[in-house]
Amino acid sequence: MEETLRSLIRSVTPLDQDAMAAARARQARLAKPPGSLGRLEELSVQMAGITGNVFNTVRKRQLLVFAADNGVVAEGVSSAPQSVTLQQTINLTRAKTGASVLAKHFGCDVTVCDVGVNADIREPAVLNRKIAYGTRNIAKGPAMTREQALRAILTGAELAKESRADVLGIGEMGIGNTTTSSAVLAVLLDAPVETVTGRGGGITDESFRKKKAVISQAIAGNRPDPADVVDVLTKVGGLDIAAMCGAFLGAAAARRPVVIDGFISAVAALCAVRLCPPAQGYLVPSHASYEIGYRLAMEALGLRPMLLLDMRLGEGSGCPLAFSVLEGACAVMNDMATFDQAGIDDGYLEPIRRGDSFTVGERT
Amino acid sequence: MEETLRSLIRSVTPLDQDAMAAARARQARLAKPPGSLGRLEELSVQMAGITGNVFNTVRKRQLLVFAADNGVVAEGVSSAPQSVTLQQTINLTRAKTGASVLAKHFGCDVTVCDVGVNADIREPAVLNRKIAYGTRNIAKGPAMTREQALRAILTGAELAKESRADVLGIGEMGIGNTTTSSAVLAVLLDAPVETVTGRGGGITDESFRKKKAVISQAIAGNRPDPADVVDVLTKVGGLDIAAMCGAFLGAAAARRPVVIDGFISAVAALCAVRLCPPAQGYLVPSHASYEIGYRLAMEALGLRPMLLLDMRLGEGSGCPLAFSVLEGACAVMNDMATFDQAGIDDGYLEPIRRGDSFTVGERT
Repeated sequence: MEETLRSLIRSVTPLDQDAMAAARARQARLAKPPGSLGRLEELSVQMAGITGNVFNTVRKRQLLVFAADNGVVAEGVSSAPQSVTLQQTINLTRAKTGASVLAKHFGCDVTVCDVGVNADIREPAVLNRKIAYGTRNIAKGPAMTREQALRAILTGAELAKESRADVLGIGEMGIGNTTTSSAVLAVLLDAPVETVTGRGGGITDESFRKKKAVISQAIAGNRPDPADVVDVLTKVGGLDIAAMCGAFLGAAAARRPVVIDGFISAVAALCAVRLCPPAQGYLVPSHASYEIGYRLAMEALGLRPMLLLDMRLGEGSGCPLAFSVLEGACAVMNDMATFDQAGIDDGYLEPIRRGDSFTVGERT
Repeated sequence: MEETLRSLIRSVTPLDQDAMAAARARQARLAKPPGSLGRLEELSVQMAGITGNVFNTVRKRQLLVFAADNGVVAEGVSSAPQSVTLQQTINLTRAKTGASVLAKHFGCDVTVCDVGVNADIREPAVLNRKIAYGTRNIAKGPAMTREQALRAILTGAELAKESRADVLGIGEMGIGNTTTSSAVLAVLLDAPVETVTGRGGGITDESFRKKKAVISQAIAGNRPDPADVVDVLTKVGGLDIAAMCGAFLGAAAARRPVVIDGFISAVAALCAVRLCPPAQGYLVPSHASYEIGYRLAMEALGLRPMLLLDMRLGEGSGCPLAFSVLEGACAVMNDMATFDQAGIDDGYLEPIRRGDSFTVGERT
C-alpha cells in the first residue's frame, strides 16, 4: 500500500497555467472594474487551472462524509456519547442532519462512507468501507496500525477519484474527532496543544482541561514523526481524518475541485498537502470554523475562509454554501458581458448630457 | 412629504419577540450541539422575528437596484466616465452585469429603478422614477433640494413596500457614489475623511488624494447637520443612496428581510437606522466589501458580514449569495430532525459495542 500511496501522490499534477492565463485574460475583459469581483474572479481562475477549461460548471456536487469512531472518547473528552456517531451516520443518509439538510436543499448528493464506526450498520445507504470498529485510545497507544491508516487514505482517495461530480466537499462524522484532529495538527505544526484545541461539540471546563491533557499525553506517549504524515495519522489520528486526507488527494488526482469544511476537514487537507504539495491547488475553502485550530490549519494551507457563519457542526455542513459561491464564480465567468458586448448603441437611449449642466429638478 | 416620512418611520415595528422565542426553542431541540450552526441559527430566529412565523422560506427574492448620477464626478473622483451609469443601468436589466448575472443564476428577480440617471432611458425594463438628471456637484453646493431627497427616500420605500418578494436586496449603480457615500458616512459618524474613503472602482493615487479633498470640501462647504439624516443626504448624498435608505425603511415597514450589499448599501442602511432604529432588526448583512468605509458603517449598524469575497463591484452583487445563506438558515429550521426524531430505533442497527474493547483490525 505504501507504493500505491506514492503512486497516487505522483499522479497529482500542478494546475494548468495556460488555462489560468486565459481565464485571467477573460476576467480582464469583463465589464467591471478590474478585480472588483474579488475572490469570485480568483475562484474562476482556479477552476480553469483545475479543469484546463476557461468555462466551467459545478452542477454535479457531492458531499463525501467519512464516519468513524475514536477510542479516545473513553477519556471523557466529548460532550456526546459515542452512539451519536452511529445515529448521525445513518441520519446523514436521510436528510435529517444539518449537513444533509443543507446538501439536499442545495442539490448536492451525499455519500456517507463508514470507515470505522463502532457498530455494524445495516442501512444500505451507508457505504461499507469499514476498516475497524473504531480506533484505539490514543492516550494509551497508537490509534491504529500503519496498514490501517494507509488503507483509510486509499479508501478515501478511491471514492474521490471514482466520483462523477464537478466538485466534491469533504466532511466527517465521528465523536471524539476534534481531539484527534487537534493532536494531528499540534504534531504537524509543532504547535502548543492549547493553541490548536477547542471545545468541539461543547464540553465543560473540566472536560476541556482533560481534552488538552489527553492530547499532550497522546503525543508524548506515541512520539509520532512530524515528517511522516502517515505515522502521525497512525499514532494520534483517526480513520475518518485519514480517509478524508485520501479524499483530498483523490480529488486532486482526478483534477476535481474539492471543498474543505471545518476544522477536521482542514486538518485532513493539511495532511494531504504535506504528503503532496501540488494538491493545494485543488482546495477550495468554505466557512471559518469556530474551532480554534481551524485558523492555524488554514494559515498553514495558505487559504482564507469565504463564509463567516460561526459554525462548528462538521458533517461537511459548510460545503453546500461554498458550492454556491463556486457556482457564482463560474456564472460570472460564463455569462457576464465583456466591455465590447456591454456597450449600448442600439437606439434605446438619448445621448448623455455631459459636463456641468446638471438639470436637477428640471424634470420629475 | 416630511409627514409621509414620519408616518413611514412610525409604521416600522420591533421584531416579534414571541416568534423569536419559539424559534430559539425549536433550534434547541434540533439534533446538533447547541449553537453549532452559528449564524444560520441566528438568521432563522431573526426571520421568525421579522415574519412572526417560526418556519419561513425565501423562495421569492428580489434585487432592487437604484441608479443615479452624481454631479461630483466633475471633480475627477471616479475611474469610469459618467456614461457607465447609463450603460450598466441598462445592462443590469439584460443579465449582463456582475450582479445581474449572479441574480439570474440564483433565481432572483432584478428591478432596476432610475431615480437620477443623467439621460432619458427608453429601455422599458428600467423603472422610471427619475427625480433629476443627476445631482449637483457636492464640492460646490448641496447635492439636491430637501424635497428631492425626501422624494427619493419615499420612492425607494414605496418600491420595497410594494414588493411581493420574501426577501429583498438593495444595490446601486451610480458612478461617483463611493464619494458621496464616504461623505455621508463621515458626517454621520463624525469620522475623519481618510478613515471612510477608499479607491472605489480603482483610481490613481492622484485621484484618490483629490477624492478625499473633495469630500472634505463638500462637508466643510455644505455643513450638513449630522442629527438630521435628510439634511445629510440632501447636502452631500445622492439620489441613489437616498432611495436605498428609503428601500430599507420600506422593507422594514412591510416586515420583510432586507439584505445589505456593500459599502454604499451599508451607508444607506445606516441612514435608515438613524432615521428609524427598529429598522435594524430587518437588516441582513452579505459580503465584506473591500471598501475601507464598509467596516465602520457595519460596526455602527452592529452587524458583521457573512461572506469574505473581497468584492467591491456594487450593483447588489453580494445579495444573491446572501439570499442562499438565508435560504440555508430557513432549510435548517424547516427540515432538520429534532433530537426526538433523530433517534435510530428501527432495527437497522446492531447494539453499539461500548467500553474499551475496541476491535481494531478484527474485521476488515
